Amino acid sequence: MNPPPRTQEQRKQDTLHRLEHDVDAWVATADGQSGLPYLVPLSFLWDGSALLISTPAASTTSRNLQATGKVRIGIGPTRDVLLIEGTVQVLTAAEITDEVGDAFAAKTGFDPRRLSSPYLYFRIHPQRLQAWREVNELKGRELLTDGHWLTT
Amino acid sequence: MNPPPRTQEQRKQDTLHRLEHDVDAWVATADGQSGLPYLVPLSFLWDGSALLISTPAASTTSRNLQATGKVRIGIGPTRDVLLIEGTVQVLTAAEITDEVGDAFAAKTGFDPRRLSSPYLYFRIHPQRLQAWREVNELKGRELLTDGHWLTT
Repeated sequence: MNPPPRTQEQRKQDTLHRLEHDVDAWVATADGQSGLPYLVPLSFLWDGSALLISTPAASTTSRNLQATGKVRIGIGPTRDVLLIEGTVQVLTAAEITDEVGDAFAAKTGFDPRRLSSPYLYFRIHPQRLQAWREVNELKGRELLTDGHWLTT
Repeated sequence: MNPPPRTQEQRKQDTLHRLEHDVDAWVATADGQSGLPYLVPLSFLWDGSALLISTPAASTTSRNLQATGKVRIGIGPTRDVLLIEGTVQVLTAAEITDEVGDAFAAKTGFDPRRLSSPYLYFRIHPQRLQAWREVNELKGRELLTDGHWLTT
């Protein structure tokens, strides 16, 4: 027997806690031409309104993000998920402030600015966010649409 | 400090245990035209050589799988992952044997054969499988290529 579904307010609170404290996300992208999906776990930093990830400039995820500008992100264990769709902003290490670069390194445990191979950062602004635990939470899973939280 | 990397044999053994006992997978697919990725957690049954999943016939995952025949699957927490690429076989409920249908229902806790809305099954034969825990296991993460295990 699952616990009763959480309120929208509780889900938003739990979501913000997970964005703040979780380290890794499943990042799904796709090739724009063939429909070939790609999926890989990457560490992220949440700055209060966007996720920041970083991956080698030549990686599949990087190439897909640059080509399509489209991403879908899963966070959490499969029975307590966040699913996020967002806009993608490509940033070089030179375009990241020292403060953000330091915060990213502290949170994720790796600092792309110090690596010899070229990395890119990607800032993802959620346009849609869903959160649910079990089947009884599928109703009401939309927490953010068109970039805006549905509850304040 | 991470533990030393596992041997290929140990990784294969751990992988088979996870395929047998884990209930959920992250299933990434994509629209064949726009490069729009999709990602959703789904329960699966492992039959010893393939994964079986099921989703409503009209769902985004189902439509993507039917259109592209391409999938990438992540299993496990992000610091103990399996990543699988495989071929996709579409099956109606009528094409599933009673034994397989019953095993799927027992493992996943839901039985698409008993639902009034139309569901499809998808059998995914791994063509490539990678497994790693931390950065020190990235080397040697390929366990299965071209549909064959690299260790016996």
